[in-house]
Amino acid sequence: MPNTTVALIGYGYWGPNLLRNYMELAGAEVKWVCDSRPERLEKAIARYPSIVSTTDLKVVLGDPDVDAILIATPIGTHYAVAMEALHAGKHVFVEKPMAMTVGECDEMCRAAEERGLTLMVGHTFVYSPPVRLVKSIIDSGELGDVRFITCSRVNLGLHSKEVSVVWDLAPHDLSILAYWLGETPLSVQAMGRSCIIDGIPDVAFLNVRYASGIIAELEVSWLSPVKLRRTVIVGSKKMLMYDDTESVEKVKIFDQGVDYKDPETFGEFQLSYRTGGIYSPRVENTEPLFVEAAHFIDCVANGTTPLTDGASGRLVVAALEAAQASLDAGAKNPDERRGRVERRRRAREE
Amino acid sequence: MPNTTVALIGYGYWGPNLLRNYMELAGAEVKWVCDSRPERLEKAIARYPSIVSTTDLKVVLGDPDVDAILIATPIGTHYAVAMEALHAGKHVFVEKPMAMTVGECDEMCRAAEERGLTLMVGHTFVYSPPVRLVKSIIDSGELGDVRFITCSRVNLGLHSKEVSVVWDLAPHDLSILAYWLGETPLSVQAMGRSCIIDGIPDVAFLNVRYASGIIAELEVSWLSPVKLRRTVIVGSKKMLMYDDTESVEKVKIFDQGVDYKDPETFGEFQLSYRTGGIYSPRVENTEPLFVEAAHFIDCVANGTTPLTDGASGRLVVAALEAAQASLDAGAKNPDERRGRVERRRRAREE
Amino acid sequence: MPNTTVALIGYGYWGPNLLRNYMELAGAEVKWVCDSRPERLEKAIARYPSIVSTTDLKVVLGDPDVDAILIATPIGTHYAVAMEALHAGKHVFVEKPMAMTVGECDEMCRAAEERGLTLMVGHTFVYSPPVRLVKSIIDSGELGDVRFITCSRVNLGLHSKEVSVVWDLAPHDLSILAYWLGETPLSVQAMGRSCIIDGIPDVAFLNVRYASGIIAELEVSWLSPVKLRRTVIVGSKKMLMYDDTESVEKVKIFDQGVDYKDPETFGEFQLSYRTGGIYSPRVENTEPLFVEAAHFIDCVANGTTPLTDGASGRLVVAALEAAQASLDAGAKNPDERRGRVERRRRAREE
Amino acid sequence: MPNTTVALIGYGYWGPNLLRNYMELAGAEVKWVCDSRPERLEKAIARYPSIVSTTDLKVVLGDPDVDAILIATPIGTHYAVAMEALHAGKHVFVEKPMAMTVGECDEMCRAAEERGLTLMVGHTFVYSPPVRLVKSIIDSGELGDVRFITCSRVNLGLHSKEVSVVWDLAPHDLSILAYWLGETPLSVQAMGRSCIIDGIPDVAFLNVRYASGIIAELEVSWLSPVKLRRTVIVGSKKMLMYDDTESVEKVKIFDQGVDYKDPETFGEFQLSYRTGGIYSPRVENTEPLFVEAAHFIDCVANGTTPLTDGASGRLVVAALEAAQASLDAGAKNPDERRGRVERRRRAREE
Repeated sequence: MPNTTVALIGYGYWGPNLLRNYMELAGAEVKWVCDSRPERLEKAIARYPSIVSTTDLKVVLGDPDVDAILIATPIGTHYAVAMEALHAGKHVFVEKPMAMTVGECDEMCRAAEERGLTLMVGHTFVYSPPVRLVKSIIDSGELGDVRFITCSRVNLGLHSKEVSVVWDLAPHDLSILAYWLGETPLSVQAMGRSCIIDGIPDVAFLNVRYASGIIAELEVSWLSPVKLRRTVIVGSKKMLMYDDTESVEKVKIFDQGVDYKDPETFGEFQLSYRTGGIYSPRVENTEPLFVEAAHFIDCVANGTTPLTDGASGRLVVAALEAAQASLDAGAKNPDERRGRVERRRRAREE
Repeated sequence: MPNTTVALIGYGYWGPNLLRNYMELAGAEVKWVCDSRPERLEKAIARYPSIVSTTDLKVVLGDPDVDAILIATPIGTHYAVAMEALHAGKHVFVEKPMAMTVGECDEMCRAAEERGLTLMVGHTFVYSPPVRLVKSIIDSGELGDVRFITCSRVNLGLHSKEVSVVWDLAPHDLSILAYWLGETPLSVQAMGRSCIIDGIPDVAFLNVRYASGIIAELEVSWLSPVKLRRTVIVGSKKMLMYDDTESVEKVKIFDQGVDYKDPETFGEFQLSYRTGGIYSPRVENTEPLFVEAAHFIDCVANGTTPLTDGASGRLVVAALEAAQASLDAGAKNPDERRGRVERRRRAREE
Repeated sequence: MPNTTVALIGYGYWGPNLLRNYMELAGAEVKWVCDSRPERLEKAIARYPSIVSTTDLKVVLGDPDVDAILIATPIGTHYAVAMEALHAGKHVFVEKPMAMTVGECDEMCRAAEERGLTLMVGHTFVYSPPVRLVKSIIDSGELGDVRFITCSRVNLGLHSKEVSVVWDLAPHDLSILAYWLGETPLSVQAMGRSCIIDGIPDVAFLNVRYASGIIAELEVSWLSPVKLRRTVIVGSKKMLMYDDTESVEKVKIFDQGVDYKDPETFGEFQLSYRTGGIYSPRVENTEPLFVEAAHFIDCVANGTTPLTDGASGRLVVAALEAAQASLDAGAKNPDERRGRVERRRRAREE
Repeated sequence: MPNTTVALIGYGYWGPNLLRNYMELAGAEVKWVCDSRPERLEKAIARYPSIVSTTDLKVVLGDPDVDAILIATPIGTHYAVAMEALHAGKHVFVEKPMAMTVGECDEMCRAAEERGLTLMVGHTFVYSPPVRLVKSIIDSGELGDVRFITCSRVNLGLHSKEVSVVWDLAPHDLSILAYWLGETPLSVQAMGRSCIIDGIPDVAFLNVRYASGIIAELEVSWLSPVKLRRTVIVGSKKMLMYDDTESVEKVKIFDQGVDYKDPETFGEFQLSYRTGGIYSPRVENTEPLFVEAAHFIDCVANGTTPLTDGASGRLVVAALEAAQASLDAGAKNPDERRGRVERRRRAREE
């Protein structure tokens, strides 16, 4: 099978990670790196002299050698770049979040489908070993029915100047939940606050409801004294904790729960609490980004649908839109406005 | 100064703790223990033979020796017992939550005020050394302006058969927040689920907003693989973590934050992240319940207003009512109903 | 079966714990409490009015009702009290360490044996659920052959004014190791220092060797910034950690080790590292002291040999004697003496 | 000031780290990489095409451009390579441990001194920010007099096939202690065991005594269920913990200790326990290896004596020799031999 020739668009914060992984990937050949900033291109070339660089996207898209495009540009440009690439007949890998609106996502999905092109979104955590392990545990039925999930993704910084913490951090958890549960959120409500930059919430709490009755609480923040990457799943049989900051015991299964004796049998219902052993399975140590890259190349080569396809990207953007609408509504409250006014005044006085 | 004579009403789960502390308290004399269950009274007498027991509340309230009543009966009876006691001219200490509705709280406050009687609510955490220490740190300005607070109060069990986890656990955090912030919540929204007993949510997430712009997120649950008693305060200058499960480092102050440089001066705003030292001050080891009991006796003896007076109890009940209304509204959604139906069916099939 | 009548000798720091457990024990009746300090006896009687008190040991030993004696007096008196009791025909439970010398232990064992009396030593940890669980794991072969064991038993205080930290804390670990391994130490060497009270080491490190090749390192200290109660067992197949300060995961089994490929087969030997899952079994929550008390009464009633009999007590004292000899030899070094001189001088100057 | 031209001898496990740092160092120019294995040289050249490679040490030492040699060859060759380089008039940086015997160290020191050449040993931890911070805390007197120190440096693997765990891991702690205390050990005793490879101890406990009375206990092991890098310092005023596995709170100062009231004043001595706050200062995040490299170049350029000079390397080797002698003596015990015999037999049977 011939190599898939790819071009990387955007060599900012994340682009170098993509480039490094695609360079090591058998089956892929990186021909172009494209960025509007010449000094970024120099960095890429210095590291990988075999690559050709350009500031002109059209040159890349006009190259018949190029099979696929990797988009790592600012979020606001994902839609435009991806549409141009799809129209040029290129397969597209686009970083998360896929776009700024559900409408954009729909157009992107349609454009890819009409041309029979692969469209994949960079929900990297779906390709990480602990997240995959948890998926297999859920699917095995070991936890029973999932009742609720809590996710904390907080640390100090780095503030984005463009998008809120919701658009920056919540896509991780929303895509993980979609992968685990196979369900689309029914509703998403959010409370947040813009503590540092006016109009850009840096802490938010998302309440997510699913049709199955499962609820999920997401805490995302750029302001936290400690770094947390912790997810708790409470099932009807067992409970699970996934802590990505742990170097060894990333996933723990707690054999504990509450057993309910039906009132029809016992007159009054009875509860018994069960606390058994705790097991932490070994988690493999492969780089999620490499697995993701290999999956994209494989889907392009074989015409299969990616695990994190356009529909998956759309689901995440839909949840983000709902959360944003909820934050905006909250920010219109007089109290919230008052908080803002006070902060501005203080900033001037200091 | 003569001793204050008290009577304990209710000798169930919590009553013995009150009794033990009041027995050791100089300035207080426990004359009566009253409970509708004779077997409970026997237990009390076996332990403290000097006390008189009765199943008849009227006998206690008719005793002119009795100055004050301690109410540790089920929540649903707080209002009725307290009103009867106040009408009989007795000072009242009532466990939290103070009553089931704001209306009941208002009547209790009025009844006490009209008769010049002390009315105090058992928000015990307000009398605990780490909570007091955090209060003094906030008041000192060391944290700067409080931006937001997150509270996790979760563990496995014990399910109440009467009230939801919100009424059982959230009063602790709501009374702590009221004490720290000196503010009444503007709004409280909640998402929860009844995982084990139909109609009694055992996990809930509360979004609380204050007029100052501060937001707080409370997580309360009877279903958790690990016990958490953790509160994080993010201030404009420093951050603080209060973890009540820690035996030594209960309170930690993090000298870290984000410094914001105004765009009016710098063209574009700039952020700098500051991560300094972490300090864990020593926390005294006195029993909160003993401090609370001494405070009640002192207020009765001197006619001073308790720190956790009727107004403080009312504030907590108001927040609980709002949370409950929000939970009820959520439970009316078709999705939530579907979840319930499914659970019932499964329970029958198993 | 008639009750066993016991008398408690010594009501200081530890006596109350023994008394409480024996009072709750079916099959035992506590008739006497004996202590040379009348004010201690008053405390005992106030709590348990049914008991008779005396300051005269001879009165207790002369009472034909008394079947067994519980000795909780200072270590230096264990031998004398126990011998008197055995000569009076009483069964004996004595706190650890059993005596001050191996010679004393031998006499005690002989006296008990000659009269067919039960002699048991209060190595309480042998009766604690996690220690028993670890014993069953070792015996099951799950760990393979035990290679070495490390034990840390350190915290701040409380300094004894009579005996060193070795005699105070090391009996716990030495008795646990004897129980787990079923082996007598071949040699014990120690290094320590008297940091606070001259001549009473408050930190010590014990190197223990067994005939099987197993080695053990014990760290005992009254001077430590954190409390540690941690034991690590490295076996040829798996490893285990027992941390008694953990409330939940007290025992953890690590499925990890090194697999050795023999050079005779492979030319040069090869090692492969195996890191599998980690399992923390549930540990029961029974009070060790109660299990110990029940075991003593059972042994007395049925004439069976206690798990922690005189031989077990002797083994521990022999190890302590060896450690002490090693410490004394070290303290005779000029350097060690110099350290002491310096400290004394500084103490005077300050 | 002209650049210092260096040559790296040995491009195995550690050499690449040295090379990377010296390549980034202003003031240094790496001209040669020398290794007996051509395939290793290819790796170096591929990464840094500007460097010249050779398998012949004499070619490097004969190059008059070369000012200094970096030795990262196997321990057994340190002495020979260093002596050859010094005789050729080159400054020498040699990895730790400096050599296999004190005699070799003495010769190396003499050779460097006679020629006025810099001789520095790669005790890298002495250049790490937390170790430096602890040094400054000790020197400030905040801890009071150091009483004792415990060091745990354990993890699973990697077994060396040449030297024991003592020669592999203990140099870190011995050099750190030398830096902190400014003292040479009076005596070093060790207990260890060869669990996996016959004759190569993979776990050892070192008892170190200093003339000042300070004692130190070092635990080093390639067999441990958890990775520990923990050092505790108990001082007469405060205590300190340095945990290198912590990402944030690497150093903690505990304001706790025991205050001793002199018996000459109080009749009997009295102890009072003090437990104050705990402070974790911020630790900088610079790479120790880079600081070390810059220090070597600076010493060469200015003729100043390195912090970790030959004398410091000799001190560590002397302690290792003493530990090894102690291990060898222990291994000659019949019990230890028996352990070995048994293991060999088992290996054959399996």
